[in-house]
Amino acid sequence: MDLRVDADRLRADFDALASIGANAQGGLDRAALTPAQLEARAWFLERARAAGLETSVDAAGNHSARRPGGPGTLLLGSHLDSVPNGGRFDGALGVVAALEVLRVTEDHDLELPVTLEAIDFTDEEGTLVGLLGSQALAGALDPADLEAPRGGRAALVAGLERAGLDESRLGDARRDPSSLAGYLELHIEQGPVLERAGVEIGVVSAIVGSRSFYVTFEGAAAHAGTTPMDARRDAGVAAATFVLGVNEIVRREFPSCVATVGSIELEPGAFNVVPGRARVALEFRAGDDASLDRLEARLLGGRVAEPVAAWKPTTLHADARAAIAEAAADLGLSAIELPSGAGHDAQSLAGVTRSGMIFVPSQGGISHQPAEHTAWADCLNGANVLLHAALKLALDG
Amino acid sequence: MDLRVDADRLRADFDALASIGANAQGGLDRAALTPAQLEARAWFLERARAAGLETSVDAAGNHSARRPGGPGTLLLGSHLDSVPNGGRFDGALGVVAALEVLRVTEDHDLELPVTLEAIDFTDEEGTLVGLLGSQALAGALDPADLEAPRGGRAALVAGLERAGLDESRLGDARRDPSSLAGYLELHIEQGPVLERAGVEIGVVSAIVGSRSFYVTFEGAAAHAGTTPMDARRDAGVAAATFVLGVNEIVRREFPSCVATVGSIELEPGAFNVVPGRARVALEFRAGDDASLDRLEARLLGGRVAEPVAAWKPTTLHADARAAIAEAAADLGLSAIELPSGAGHDAQSLAGVTRSGMIFVPSQGGISHQPAEHTAWADCLNGANVLLHAALKLALDG
Repeated sequence: MDLRVDADRLRADFDALASIGANAQGGLDRAALTPAQLEARAWFLERARAAGLETSVDAAGNHSARRPGGPGTLLLGSHLDSVPNGGRFDGALGVVAALEVLRVTEDHDLELPVTLEAIDFTDEEGTLVGLLGSQALAGALDPADLEAPRGGRAALVAGLERAGLDESRLGDARRDPSSLAGYLELHIEQGPVLERAGVEIGVVSAIVGSRSFYVTFEGAAAHAGTTPMDARRDAGVAAATFVLGVNEIVRREFPSCVATVGSIELEPGAFNVVPGRARVALEFRAGDDASLDRLEARLLGGRVAEPVAAWKPTTLHADARAAIAEAAADLGLSAIELPSGAGHDAQSLAGVTRSGMIFVPSQGGISHQPAEHTAWADCLNGANVLLHAALKLALDG
Repeated sequence: MDLRVDADRLRADFDALASIGANAQGGLDRAALTPAQLEARAWFLERARAAGLETSVDAAGNHSARRPGGPGTLLLGSHLDSVPNGGRFDGALGVVAALEVLRVTEDHDLELPVTLEAIDFTDEEGTLVGLLGSQALAGALDPADLEAPRGGRAALVAGLERAGLDESRLGDARRDPSSLAGYLELHIEQGPVLERAGVEIGVVSAIVGSRSFYVTFEGAAAHAGTTPMDARRDAGVAAATFVLGVNEIVRREFPSCVATVGSIELEPGAFNVVPGRARVALEFRAGDDASLDRLEARLLGGRVAEPVAAWKPTTLHADARAAIAEAAADLGLSAIELPSGAGHDAQSLAGVTRSGMIFVPSQGGISHQPAEHTAWADCLNGANVLLHAALKLALDG
């Protein structure tokens, strides 16, 4: 098939969507269940209806456009929420591309053995809970995450109310796995790997797992003027040594992993007091559990640390990866497999269906900020790979 | 003269004073111009009146007890304010010892060629401004410090109102330098030098100067999952390198100085974002301007830094140092000269009169916390040195 997405229509949709929640810095303020994000979701359903598609909203607020076919549903999607002052591509590209794929099949009256569904998942970014909508759809929503949500209870309650959602019924969004034919997501890479390699398409092999901890260092608070250097037990110096150690160990011993100290708090935190206590926020990521275990042992080295969060690594489905790789080859696009360092809705779906992801290059690897950018030609390549991979999965499913 | 302070009377005063503002942790909450500190000041005047001394409060709230003698005034004092959750010795010892010296001269009907004045200075610790009372008395109060006080305008205004002080008249506390015969202050060392050396009395040679800066490191905020280690510009790693560099440089190249990084702020400060910006609070201290200049050049090394505060080093007066050293020798006490790493009211007084300080050992060098402690025998030694040094200065003045 020599099908292609309609580049002008896709571009018009992308630009219209990027104006919803746009801020003065050139970024996007469209956090989950804020008025701007709800406006974006309403716009999405309107565009779907204009194309003659069915629309629906489930109990977790996931917004869908549907083109009925066979009994199984092949989901194509991503998310319309952004981080605060985020970029225009993260999530949004995947949703407008999914909608466009449905329109192309409609334009050509393709008869498919599956129902195609373009879906916008609720709260992928975790302003409130994280992967809320896709976890609910996969039947994996953890009640504990609702009781103590990342964004705080007040923000969650307010967001659900704004969206007209009932917290006690979020789990009703669960789909029977046997009703699903697969899930494909087009997304920007958000890192520099594809750009550095000069490759057009990334076939995501796995979504890395992560673990995060608060690590505390106890010293002795002391007067910064009267305490000689050799009489100090400076918790800030201990924390700084840890930061450099983490950086060096990961670079040398774990070349395919990352570790980050994102914050350091010194107590009491004054110019004139030697820090008596330091607390650092440590996070590390790896593509498999064994590497996470080794990283944890090596970086913490027996230190007392308070676990904060853990995500297990997820391998994406061989069928989906093959469909994406073949689609790229059919279209004459260069492709490599790579792991995703960021979490995505595709990891929720991997628990219940054949889940796959397509990456397109991020300029400078920049994401989650106004400067986030992907060349339009790359966006278009990604949308066409999504189209062809979807048809392959639909036909082989 | 074989005079000694009355050990029991001094101890009773010390204990009574230590109960004012005592908290449940065994510490003292008696910040400047709080109700507890005003209660301590009232207690001080009451004890002075009970001993037949004159009392007065000046326009900066400094509280004084006076035993009239000659036209010149020899000031003996310290401060009754504490840091939040501070110790019982810092400041308080010097005030009760000064009062006791006046009582001893009264008990023995000593006719002195000077007026002796025991004084409690306002806000030595800088909860509000820092050395507020002694700077006012020395005619050195900086209007800028009142406009942008360390503790904030609201706290200053509230404190002055509680104490019945008029901000526009604080400067009226200024004394004519020709009216002053000198100033002596007994204080705990707040560091470990005397204890380590096994010496009973410290003759303070100088009060070190200090400079403080905010130093900022610019990196690039990036996604902690998608940004490979070798593609990062991590401002937190830069800040940690700086912290360890400061520590090493001062230990190796400036053995008599100190430098401290008291706080580190990483932005945006999340587990999952590589820090794009780091701001560290740097302070360093030295006994002379040349050393401060060399430290600044070596530690900042041309980095952009925002000056926050600067105190010039102060050399204490040769007459006062000699009087203290002779008094210790007369009493058979071991003594060494040492600089003070902390600021004191004596540095304000050094600008207008012969200013000197006596240090007694701090157990473990601990100060500004409930565990602050000086053996009572050491306190007593200090009070007797204060007595004899005061008599020497009074007689040679």
